[in-house]
Amino acid sequence: MKKIQVITLFPEMFEGVFNTSMMWKAQKEGAVEFGLVNLRDFGIGPRKQVDDTPYGGGDGMLLKPEPLFAAVAAAKEKDPTAKVLLMTPRGQRWKQATAQQYADDAHGYIFICGRYEGYDERIVSLVDEQLSVGDYVLTGGELPAMTIIDSIVRLIPGVLGGEASAEIESFSDGETLEFPQYTKPADYNGMTVPEVLLSGNHAAIAQWREEHSIKAAKE
Amino acid sequence: MKKIQVITLFPEMFEGVFNTSMMWKAQKEGAVEFGLVNLRDFGIGPRKQVDDTPYGGGDGMLLKPEPLFAAVAAAKEKDPTAKVLLMTPRGQRWKQATAQQYADDAHGYIFICGRYEGYDERIVSLVDEQLSVGDYVLTGGELPAMTIIDSIVRLIPGVLGGEASAEIESFSDGETLEFPQYTKPADYNGMTVPEVLLSGNHAAIAQWREEHSIKAAKE
Repeated sequence: MKKIQVITLFPEMFEGVFNTSMMWKAQKEGAVEFGLVNLRDFGIGPRKQVDDTPYGGGDGMLLKPEPLFAAVAAAKEKDPTAKVLLMTPRGQRWKQATAQQYADDAHGYIFICGRYEGYDERIVSLVDEQLSVGDYVLTGGELPAMTIIDSIVRLIPGVLGGEASAEIESFSDGETLEFPQYTKPADYNGMTVPEVLLSGNHAAIAQWREEHSIKAAKE
Repeated sequence: MKKIQVITLFPEMFEGVFNTSMMWKAQKEGAVEFGLVNLRDFGIGPRKQVDDTPYGGGDGMLLKPEPLFAAVAAAKEKDPTAKVLLMTPRGQRWKQATAQQYADDAHGYIFICGRYEGYDERIVSLVDEQLSVGDYVLTGGELPAMTIIDSIVRLIPGVLGGEASAEIESFSDGETLEFPQYTKPADYNGMTVPEVLLSGNHAAIAQWREEHSIKAAKE
């Protein structure tokens, strides 16, 4: 069973996502166990402070080191060998091959979700990997964490059936994406399904699909 | 006020995300209005069927055309000029510049979240843009939709204060990412803040930050 813990100021963002569809089934089947760590619980003083102004001036508030060090320590107590992952636009770009590697690795993960006003740089000393989901700015690390978690969990053996295999292949060679697919009705408002797919001729269907696969060398 | 509607089989995934932090504030301030359209409501027959097996054979179930055409029609009735966006790994890669353009455009958006077993290709005729958040496979279009929505909404004028400007700049030239930042305490367990940031010397601070900006031509 893979343990995945998330350190966040907004644990309520994860509930709908973790308790639906594939992620819910993966927990039910014992493939993964999720833990939410509320960073606020490790805040300082009666107001549970977690952020402060930047040294040297500048806009916005930064996450302070003490609460994050304490939250990571608490998460590591539950899973001492877990890898600590920081969601940041500076991080390594997430890819399908990395998702497969993370799903195969035996240890658990602790995700740190910053808010993108920023964080104290000393936090990086806690971290095994800095990860980015793409070249766009988000309000916090929560959506990147959910995205990376989804892409890992669906690859844990037993979570998905055969339906996953096609897409995985389509990304693992980095070029071929999937072919167009059709289901009933054969005619919807004059939009018809290509004849060959209704033919029952398996060789012709395979050839049509090969020809219609979108090949796009992704940048 | 920008209208953003989402067509999904899992509206409950969005509640925690839309009702927290920046997205919640953006609604409260009247910058954006979210609508969730449950695709299941447009399912066929007593069992509200939304998917079926692929013509020509293959694993997995595909989203049928009729429920999606009906759901998009219902969403367009509420917002006739809205652009229809399909989340798919075949789509155009989402980037910060696109987020800015989508935030600036006057019209609303209707997001279609597929489940990645796939969808009937005729659905594409409904769609203005096919979008992808990155080269990794996810269980559905819900997390990509949330990601794209977050990146757009935070750029709608009035939603964020000045704290957003630094990150936006850092992506818009495509090269320079942000510099390391520090907050109190100046010494945390022997890890100290760089002296210059405590100096009050604005020119020296600016120079240090320039030197320590991470320049990375992202692939």
